[in-house]
Amino acid sequence: MLITKAPKGTEDLLPQNSYRWQFIERNFREVCDNFGYSEIRVPTFEHTELFERGVGDTTDVVQKQMYTFLDKGGRSVTLRPEGTASVARSFLQNGLFSMPLPMKTYYDVACFRYENKQKGRLREFHQLGVEVFGAKGPSIDAEVISLALAFLKNVGLSDLTVHINSIGCPSCRKKYNEILKDYFRPKLDQLCSTCQDRFERNPLRILDCKSEVCRELGKDAPVLLDYICEDCRAHFEELKATLRTIGIQFEIDPGIVRGLDYYTKTVFEIISGPFTICGGGRYDGLIEEFGGDPTPGIGFALGIERLLIRLDETGVVIPKENGLDLYVAPLGGRAAQYVQKLVFDLRNSGVKTETDHMKRGLKPQMKYADKLHCKYSVVIGDNEIDTGIVQLKNMQTGAQQEVAIDAISEFIKGEK
Amino acid sequence: MLITKAPKGTEDLLPQNSYRWQFIERNFREVCDNFGYSEIRVPTFEHTELFERGVGDTTDVVQKQMYTFLDKGGRSVTLRPEGTASVARSFLQNGLFSMPLPMKTYYDVACFRYENKQKGRLREFHQLGVEVFGAKGPSIDAEVISLALAFLKNVGLSDLTVHINSIGCPSCRKKYNEILKDYFRPKLDQLCSTCQDRFERNPLRILDCKSEVCRELGKDAPVLLDYICEDCRAHFEELKATLRTIGIQFEIDPGIVRGLDYYTKTVFEIISGPFTICGGGRYDGLIEEFGGDPTPGIGFALGIERLLIRLDETGVVIPKENGLDLYVAPLGGRAAQYVQKLVFDLRNSGVKTETDHMKRGLKPQMKYADKLHCKYSVVIGDNEIDTGIVQLKNMQTGAQQEVAIDAISEFIKGEK
Repeated sequence: MLITKAPKGTEDLLPQNSYRWQFIERNFREVCDNFGYSEIRVPTFEHTELFERGVGDTTDVVQKQMYTFLDKGGRSVTLRPEGTASVARSFLQNGLFSMPLPMKTYYDVACFRYENKQKGRLREFHQLGVEVFGAKGPSIDAEVISLALAFLKNVGLSDLTVHINSIGCPSCRKKYNEILKDYFRPKLDQLCSTCQDRFERNPLRILDCKSEVCRELGKDAPVLLDYICEDCRAHFEELKATLRTIGIQFEIDPGIVRGLDYYTKTVFEIISGPFTICGGGRYDGLIEEFGGDPTPGIGFALGIERLLIRLDETGVVIPKENGLDLYVAPLGGRAAQYVQKLVFDLRNSGVKTETDHMKRGLKPQMKYADKLHCKYSVVIGDNEIDTGIVQLKNMQTGAQQEVAIDAISEFIKGEK
Repeated sequence: MLITKAPKGTEDLLPQNSYRWQFIERNFREVCDNFGYSEIRVPTFEHTELFERGVGDTTDVVQKQMYTFLDKGGRSVTLRPEGTASVARSFLQNGLFSMPLPMKTYYDVACFRYENKQKGRLREFHQLGVEVFGAKGPSIDAEVISLALAFLKNVGLSDLTVHINSIGCPSCRKKYNEILKDYFRPKLDQLCSTCQDRFERNPLRILDCKSEVCRELGKDAPVLLDYICEDCRAHFEELKATLRTIGIQFEIDPGIVRGLDYYTKTVFEIISGPFTICGGGRYDGLIEEFGGDPTPGIGFALGIERLLIRLDETGVVIPKENGLDLYVAPLGGRAAQYVQKLVFDLRNSGVKTETDHMKRGLKPQMKYADKLHCKYSVVIGDNEIDTGIVQLKNMQTGAQQEVAIDAISEFIKGEK
């Protein structure tokens, strides 16, 4: 009996499946590279207050879903529930604001949220994302959206819709909040208790409520996009113009909101079928919230697990890594040693080579080589060692070819 | 004032330095690929009992250094202090024993130990490693050692020494333990209190004690290697022969011990200067300890941070990623939009391109392009848009070249 399983809500990525993740990550790195983004890595846990401030202490994530514990020094730390807060903290702490701006970063992180297992959500999941600091014009908004889109197309998604909205700045949102309160005031006692609380603290978040009743009550609410100030309006119009110039189709979706003060102007989602594959937006107030000088910022994040599910659903076949090039089967005791050296040298020359570690007979070895999808195989016994000549067998066609042992590497690399 | 810093003992990997890690990881993946190892990924935390059993509840790691906390379900979980236990758990839980054996895996993980910050040790650090299950012969021991060595040479280390030892199997160790106790019995009251405890429970671990006094008392102790059984002796002799055949120099180091019952036979370390860069060995008893059928196993782990320090110390210069290919500077309002589309298309065609997001003037833009180490730059204004012809400037030589806008991608990819 296995002494213990992986914790609920976590998953192993097995050797036979890891090429799928490597494919996603390799593509993401390549696109980020072409767009001039550099990788940043941040610790797995942070002081809890970072997420309380950066994600927002009225959010479900902070109130209910964080893996928070005391370290041995009695300090409250939390496993990161998302990437943005840590990257922004790192930008400030390491003085990255004094580097040439904009600072364009990307990340690939594990995130942790205490999710309800029934819904099939993972408690440890993985996000890819970008964060850009220091650029306030809408051209960077368009770039970030176009990067996400280029990546998703690269990995094989084709039914993508870009939804954009503007949630204005704190000053236009302040005005709008009053209008929204006027709308909800007569319905206040029908709202759920959480939303009744939100009514005073942050009425915008009522529009984000998952309760059917609150959704229904909010469906005719005035729309923030109609009330944004001139500056925010101009930013949004220029973003739309730039997206059109680039050739990116989009829909305006006034329903995309973010309930926290430091989110500003552009918010966007990229949808594929029933999934929001990618969500992002501008957070011009975040660096100030963390104690820095006002610094504009924008980013997005997308979940690797969800993306893989969607790729499967839409019939995208992720290309398997090239298998092994060569299987070397030793025949007899002298060959057993000889082959160790040969295999080591072949591997070092870049030929993906496998050999026997199970003292299998020749036939089981060939079956094993077949299961490993080796392209070529070769049997080496006393005769081959003495003559220096082997028969290289193409495992697919069965064709054999005489090759000098010294020339195996060259031959196989020529065939690649 | 920054609201909070990264937790003590954790570090950010900044955008300007991440190429160093990517270099290490890329090399490791490539070598593992050539040796026929596939990646496995395991959760960041596990149920605490896994490490108590897998790392050993008499070890300092388990007794003092683990990040252990209760999850919201009241279950004790621990951030992984090392990789082997999780990979072995995953092998069992997912039935990997029914795949073609040996199962050859590699991993790249963050590990967590509550280390003493004064010693410059990190509390979140990163390990690369391999684990192989199902092969009992010494040929796989030689392969694992040769893989580690090939990787370390690939990244640039040259002063490497391989130290090997055999710590036998539980049955020969049982006999040796009595001999060891006979040796320490007259010195028992001089040993540190921890070692007095170890004397009955696990005398082998006395030889691992960090106290000066215990080290001195143990320096003439009988050596386990002299007492191993015939089977273990034959395994060790064949490993030595195979290493010689492959051309790997090694030293016998009877001082390498592991105090846990499931470690068996081969143990090894690879040393560079003052550092043990890599440590590993056989753990034929681990899978059984975890509740599975007896299954031989072997692996190693090495710390990325320590390896990078050693590379710096020995003057190895890690090659920087190729910088950006092209900087496109828009001149005037019409070009500002036009360039957005051009840059998007160039990036999608694989040209690493940057442009202006700060509304900088032409001169500051060129300075910025220079700071980013762009290979080429181009200025695009009304004239260039109308004629479709631009002057491509080599940023290093200053030489200019007339190129059609449509041919920029082809030109730059030809130069790569």
